[in-house]
Amino acid sequence: MTVYVHETVFTWGATPLKFGAGAVDEIGYDLAQQDIRRVLLITDPGIAATGVPQRIADAAKAAGLTVEIYDGVHVEPTDASVLAAVEFARQSEWDGFVGVGGGSAIDTAKAVNLLTTYPADLFDYVNKPIGAAKAPPGPLKPLVAVPTTAGTGSETTPVCIMDFLELKVKSGISHPALRPTMAVIDPLLTLSMPPRVTAASGMDVLCHALESYTAKPFHSFSRHTPESRVAYNGANPISDTWTEKALHLLARSFRKAVLNGGDLEARTDMMLAATFAGMGFGNAGVHIPHACAYPIAGRVRDYRPADYPQEEPLVPHGESVALTAPAAFRFTFPTDPDKHLHAARILAPTLPEQRDPREQLPSALASLMRDIGLPNGLGGVGYDTSDVPDLVEGAMKQQRLLTISPRPVREHDLEAILLDSLENW
Amino acid sequence: MTVYVHETVFTWGATPLKFGAGAVDEIGYDLAQQDIRRVLLITDPGIAATGVPQRIADAAKAAGLTVEIYDGVHVEPTDASVLAAVEFARQSEWDGFVGVGGGSAIDTAKAVNLLTTYPADLFDYVNKPIGAAKAPPGPLKPLVAVPTTAGTGSETTPVCIMDFLELKVKSGISHPALRPTMAVIDPLLTLSMPPRVTAASGMDVLCHALESYTAKPFHSFSRHTPESRVAYNGANPISDTWTEKALHLLARSFRKAVLNGGDLEARTDMMLAATFAGMGFGNAGVHIPHACAYPIAGRVRDYRPADYPQEEPLVPHGESVALTAPAAFRFTFPTDPDKHLHAARILAPTLPEQRDPREQLPSALASLMRDIGLPNGLGGVGYDTSDVPDLVEGAMKQQRLLTISPRPVREHDLEAILLDSLENW
Repeated sequence: MTVYVHETVFTWGATPLKFGAGAVDEIGYDLAQQDIRRVLLITDPGIAATGVPQRIADAAKAAGLTVEIYDGVHVEPTDASVLAAVEFARQSEWDGFVGVGGGSAIDTAKAVNLLTTYPADLFDYVNKPIGAAKAPPGPLKPLVAVPTTAGTGSETTPVCIMDFLELKVKSGISHPALRPTMAVIDPLLTLSMPPRVTAASGMDVLCHALESYTAKPFHSFSRHTPESRVAYNGANPISDTWTEKALHLLARSFRKAVLNGGDLEARTDMMLAATFAGMGFGNAGVHIPHACAYPIAGRVRDYRPADYPQEEPLVPHGESVALTAPAAFRFTFPTDPDKHLHAARILAPTLPEQRDPREQLPSALASLMRDIGLPNGLGGVGYDTSDVPDLVEGAMKQQRLLTISPRPVREHDLEAILLDSLENW
Repeated sequence: MTVYVHETVFTWGATPLKFGAGAVDEIGYDLAQQDIRRVLLITDPGIAATGVPQRIADAAKAAGLTVEIYDGVHVEPTDASVLAAVEFARQSEWDGFVGVGGGSAIDTAKAVNLLTTYPADLFDYVNKPIGAAKAPPGPLKPLVAVPTTAGTGSETTPVCIMDFLELKVKSGISHPALRPTMAVIDPLLTLSMPPRVTAASGMDVLCHALESYTAKPFHSFSRHTPESRVAYNGANPISDTWTEKALHLLARSFRKAVLNGGDLEARTDMMLAATFAGMGFGNAGVHIPHACAYPIAGRVRDYRPADYPQEEPLVPHGESVALTAPAAFRFTFPTDPDKHLHAARILAPTLPEQRDPREQLPSALASLMRDIGLPNGLGGVGYDTSDVPDLVEGAMKQQRLLTISPRPVREHDLEAILLDSLENW
């Protein structure tokens, strides 16, 4: 006999923040406050070329710290690129780490912190079924996250994600100990972000907000033991508060930030929205669009969007997430029509009422994506009907995320969602 | 020449939470997760008599921990009562602490953690001008806060407050290191809280929310150095998010929780509201009503409210805060009419529009306080016109709070506010 008891408990946590124009100039003080004297700054080559990591290193040096910069992070980290960073870090002793960049740099810094503080095989820590999901045996070293895009929210989340090259699968490590000990969020760092990058990063934020807002509610899971309660524990009243607020900020400022990158007020709103959405999804979780994003990005053929490096084909994470969002929310609509309509009303208050209410949120998304120049569906990044079975197979591997969906997701559901996403308008 | 530059940066932090019915039953697991084997549980005699601390101790023992209970906390802690708790704690070695109760128990636990981890004279740590406001030299031991009232919000704040008996003044210690490492918030613990205690605690929550919502905005302070940026740094977009949400919950459930204590949904809302308000005011700060509350509670003559211990006269903290709130918000109204009106609309959406808009929020408060049985103004707790000069003098000592007021507060302003508060309806 199975005793089925609904969950009554949720957990919530967030990184302490320093937020505002010029916040990053105080980093020397903030590192010293955390007893850090020798610090490794982890970033990627593109961010390094902007000079921001050097500016941060100089500020830390001015405060008397010893700083080294590792700029070998791979954009969309892989197990190999993470292990290379760990290898570099192991050549010296560090009191703490600074991750500067988008999710790639901050996630790599989380993994470096874990694997240098408690050395073990990477797979010991990786989520099941890829790895053994072992908990870190104690607290990690201080890690300060400095986001340079308004996207990832990684600065407030307990998760790091990477590609496992041989397995051809994206997975990661999820544990509250991975959460950075501080986030320094300075909207001035995003002023020079080009439009396509602003658009893709912002769609990541928007999907974080919408997916965690519509996620399966925490009380709809069966009762966990404290050991089995996961980092992503479903929508709850605290995550809802943050995701609603993120939607308000996005409604006000997303188009402005893309179309007029110098608008500091819009950039500040976008940075706040990214952080707020992180405070939501970092506890509630994300579901179908993020599960589909992994194969969409992983199986790219020759798509090379403007404003991104042109050497390798790439579907930026934010684009790969956004493309299936309209169809995904059409699919999840019946689980909570009020929440879907409320989200649409916040995001697009002037959008006329659609004849079919389940179209309200997809229409709001399509209208936004057209305005900010996103590709039109999976077709826009080079996929067609014949790719759908492969994409379904890749998305089905993301059971960690699909269990957060408010509606059970089977293969034929994903197939329908992906076919529905070939064109979004 | 003074260079006057506006502040552009704010800080925000909060305790990680475990929230929900039954959350406290998992405490053994949560303590073990923080590497705690020997724990001192700190509470007051009234809470001890409910059996809750023993239940928590038993759960921790069942998980293999060594637990001792100290139940000598004074309700409204004093320097003497805090030092007695520290003295008790020093008789053994502890890996961490659990504070169980209202603000008195949790605040005492914060001080015990600080003074046993980094022994020093209490006044070294106390806020200026009473003490030297020395920062703790490093991180403290783990402290888990288990609130049993929906009031204080102390579980998420970096502050502990006490009476300095010889100096006849209330002050405290403010530093981010004091913030509990975890809060376990279980609404079931509040089901038996009697109506007057629910009413007073809830008014504390409401004033936390309204005072931090109307606090001087962070960007209206002059630029701080990172060292001088204080625990309370003014209203900011994150504290506003929390306080607005707390107001919505209070609007929905405060009257219900007082008038039907067994309503678990209302109790859950109140517990969430207390936590949300703590996440707001613990970063933004509180101002005039809290500054006035100190002398109102400290100079009590013979007021003994029902549902509280009858041995000593006592103005419960929540009542002492609430009595001047209508007059205080009448005074701060011109600094941001929109925010005051918005708060009133959330709190009392059906209240008719007042002829004088500055009366909207005071009327909403008066209507609520009548419904939940609060005393009618300072007169209701035994003060009259002749007491006002003494109360003004006591409130003027709370410069730490008065600087958070959005409008400069001089002696004659406080005099007017206190006279205006002798009767609230």
